[in-house]
Amino acid sequence: MTTQAKRNDVPLYIKVHEHDNVAIIVNAGGLKEGAGFSCGLELIEFIPQGHKVALRDLEQDQPIIRYGETIGYAKTVIKKGSWVKESLISMPTPPELDQLPLAGQTIEPFPPLEGYTFEGYRNQDGTVGIKNVLGITTSVQCVTGVLDYAVKKIKQELLPKYPNVHDVVALNHNYGCGVAIQAPDAVIPIRTIQNIATHPNFGGEVMVVGLGCEKLQPDRLADQDDILSLQDQQGFTAMVATIIEMAEERLERLNKRERETFPASELVVGLQCGGSDAFSGVTANPAIGYAADLLVRAGATVMFSEVTEVRDAVHLLTPRAVNEEVGRSLIKEMKWYDHYLQKGEADRSANPSPGNKKGGLANVVEKSLGSVAKSGTSPIAGVVPPGEKATQKGLLFAATPASDFVCGTLQLAAGMHLQVFATGRGTPYGLAMAPVVKVSTRNALLEQWNDLIDINAGTIATGEATIEEVGWELFHFILDVASGRKQTWADRWGISNELSLFNPAPIT
Amino acid sequence: MTTQAKRNDVPLYIKVHEHDNVAIIVNAGGLKEGAGFSCGLELIEFIPQGHKVALRDLEQDQPIIRYGETIGYAKTVIKKGSWVKESLISMPTPPELDQLPLAGQTIEPFPPLEGYTFEGYRNQDGTVGIKNVLGITTSVQCVTGVLDYAVKKIKQELLPKYPNVHDVVALNHNYGCGVAIQAPDAVIPIRTIQNIATHPNFGGEVMVVGLGCEKLQPDRLADQDDILSLQDQQGFTAMVATIIEMAEERLERLNKRERETFPASELVVGLQCGGSDAFSGVTANPAIGYAADLLVRAGATVMFSEVTEVRDAVHLLTPRAVNEEVGRSLIKEMKWYDHYLQKGEADRSANPSPGNKKGGLANVVEKSLGSVAKSGTSPIAGVVPPGEKATQKGLLFAATPASDFVCGTLQLAAGMHLQVFATGRGTPYGLAMAPVVKVSTRNALLEQWNDLIDINAGTIATGEATIEEVGWELFHFILDVASGRKQTWADRWGISNELSLFNPAPIT
Repeated sequence: MTTQAKRNDVPLYIKVHEHDNVAIIVNAGGLKEGAGFSCGLELIEFIPQGHKVALRDLEQDQPIIRYGETIGYAKTVIKKGSWVKESLISMPTPPELDQLPLAGQTIEPFPPLEGYTFEGYRNQDGTVGIKNVLGITTSVQCVTGVLDYAVKKIKQELLPKYPNVHDVVALNHNYGCGVAIQAPDAVIPIRTIQNIATHPNFGGEVMVVGLGCEKLQPDRLADQDDILSLQDQQGFTAMVATIIEMAEERLERLNKRERETFPASELVVGLQCGGSDAFSGVTANPAIGYAADLLVRAGATVMFSEVTEVRDAVHLLTPRAVNEEVGRSLIKEMKWYDHYLQKGEADRSANPSPGNKKGGLANVVEKSLGSVAKSGTSPIAGVVPPGEKATQKGLLFAATPASDFVCGTLQLAAGMHLQVFATGRGTPYGLAMAPVVKVSTRNALLEQWNDLIDINAGTIATGEATIEEVGWELFHFILDVASGRKQTWADRWGISNELSLFNPAPIT
Repeated sequence: MTTQAKRNDVPLYIKVHEHDNVAIIVNAGGLKEGAGFSCGLELIEFIPQGHKVALRDLEQDQPIIRYGETIGYAKTVIKKGSWVKESLISMPTPPELDQLPLAGQTIEPFPPLEGYTFEGYRNQDGTVGIKNVLGITTSVQCVTGVLDYAVKKIKQELLPKYPNVHDVVALNHNYGCGVAIQAPDAVIPIRTIQNIATHPNFGGEVMVVGLGCEKLQPDRLADQDDILSLQDQQGFTAMVATIIEMAEERLERLNKRERETFPASELVVGLQCGGSDAFSGVTANPAIGYAADLLVRAGATVMFSEVTEVRDAVHLLTPRAVNEEVGRSLIKEMKWYDHYLQKGEADRSANPSPGNKKGGLANVVEKSLGSVAKSGTSPIAGVVPPGEKATQKGLLFAATPASDFVCGTLQLAAGMHLQVFATGRGTPYGLAMAPVVKVSTRNALLEQWNDLIDINAGTIATGEATIEEVGWELFHFILDVASGRKQTWADRWGISNELSLFNPAPIT
């Protein structure tokens, strides 16, 4: 990667790969016509921050190369020093899924990292948690109003008596009834709820509030002792009293728990990006990828996701599969999603968003190449289908949509303790069950949102820090947050998003 | 309809239509083998409450008739006095959509009802509201955490200063980004959010909180002055302060409004049922249907919905269309849903739920015949596609899924002031934007949930009240609630369900 200076008034671009014929403008506010770079390049028109400049003259139909990969073809002649806008780029076809190398890329194994630990909570089933939260699962949306009423009272009246418990979370969602529960794809939302009910940050305490007549019968989620069916109760007041009583039993047990030291190998970390821009792939995501490699070297489980933002870079991933079976699993998930989009008369051009484009991302190919940088360089040890629990160590591909909330919900179902979230445009995203570490791609975002951004990777673009430095900073921050020594901004403010289930089956 | 006595120890069944060869058991707890009815019928086995008894011997393959319609065929010989269980009934094919009469059923017009009024709020656009609520619309789920934080502060610190404002509601949903917004079916969630943002219970005050980079750009929902984009703000503290400031301006204006008298013709009432049982179609739904006829006679707009619970009774509805075009619109919505279910490898047998079945409903045909009783006897004046606003008076079919929350959300988008909700098994459902009047189908449910049920129609089954009496009671209660003179139980407790958007398009 080539960067040139730290100060905003010195024209600066980032070229990622030696073969690239475009680079992105670093300077906040963009650069004017006439701006000259130390290499001799001069802009022949204004280019906004994060957008691409042509490093040489491009013929019509010539490949446009970024990250060493073709992100599209020039629709017309593009002069050196001009703005390579979205409208000038035609999309390449996606990688052909039946012709991909399935494994076998030789990866120089990094040495294991020893001695890194965190302070967590031991669960009876052998798993470890990093939070001590009472999670109250719902089997159907009907119970939301009553449960929210009860949880408000629990937080006000009970929680202060149990200072070792971090929170009480109502796991509301919009599944459970009025859905085609026998349809083949219904397996996804059902197993998602099942796995979330027993999340490791809930300390082994399970509690389910159901209605009674719903399609997703509560006994599919928990044992009878852990279930409250509202239709068995004598009215609203009794419902609320019973929820509070069941909650208090569990709060008492949770309150007795204490943190213990565990090796970093017990951690399950999810990676995601949202509100991406052209910097995501050169600052935040590579730094996250570096931290991911450190976590994998320390023996932890690390998941990257977002099928629609991986699809166009999948040819870079299948060779990294530890064996052909994992390679085939990766391709299977891509094919499932191709078919899912096709059924809905949509395609990959549904991504990126207007904000992504404003941030310089011309199309989903460019976005994907930046997105997969989060996965670092480790071998891909396994694939987790949507809603399933991760059962392996190492780097895993958890197949989820790219929607932040749906991806977050599915990574929680997979057992994620903590999520690392890269953002370029900025989003105040959070989860109640697991801390979300927000990493900014640009210095300007940190300056604007200094009470929301946890780690800034914008310094990589300006040359103030290296990918390695930010990667290590993030790695240490993850261990600190997992140990309760540091808090994310979202947790400090107590802001979080609701669960958002992936239900590709019909509703009825 | 034939009922026989009031006391639970006197064996009692309900036969709806003279051609019916089955009837449902009224007695709480069911009736034992040997129980004898005044007509001479004797049970030859135990039958639970709400379940069907054979009124005569049925041959194999003989039609089983309820509501005067075939609800299925006997899989085997069924003896008179025995339990006609779900397992003994095969499903009939659904009505063939291309061979239905489209209109033309002569309906004796009821005389108009004059002189009924309610106390509502006049909106500047000519509509009328029945609540005075500040609704804060969201263009994307990213903003939920910040908005919820701000709304909590607004409710605690500001709302007490504005006593004429009933509530502040954050209109959270899981749409806006990470969705295939160009897919053909995306039009449904988009117009739903657009129409909810300007709901008549919000007094003409519009306020949208967006992020900035989302696919559903906030300017599709409101004018620039009514939009706050979080990405334009200097951090979390500034976001919260700005939301509060925008809210206060609107609270000041809303607080100055006073109720005025309006004719009942200004009302827009939605009808729904949830947690249905075999009594739904003979007690609550017919009483609601009677009240619907009264409302239509008074000139109001009344919507019934739930495509999957109308599909098998659609041959009873198309003849009631005011003209062939309305008949064709009704059929178009049925066909759309048939195709939607088929794409997801589901069919109409996905409905009913386990609780419906426990309550005596053998299949979706029997459920549908009971469900459409809500529509009364008025001509069907129009069809409202999902997410669209109702623009007509009279009885309308608002085409929505049967899922309570999705139906509720779409009826809100259609402009519903108030919803009437029949329940047999019991659900504590509520909506923050509009009162939900809960009508029980059985006396036992009222006794069990006397702090949640607003109107009891169970008295119809025991002969203590007529359909007409309960219908009039409901009609008056609707006018009282619309006027703020009476409160529903859900509003008294402040319990409500979140919006649940219908998004048949893919997420990305």
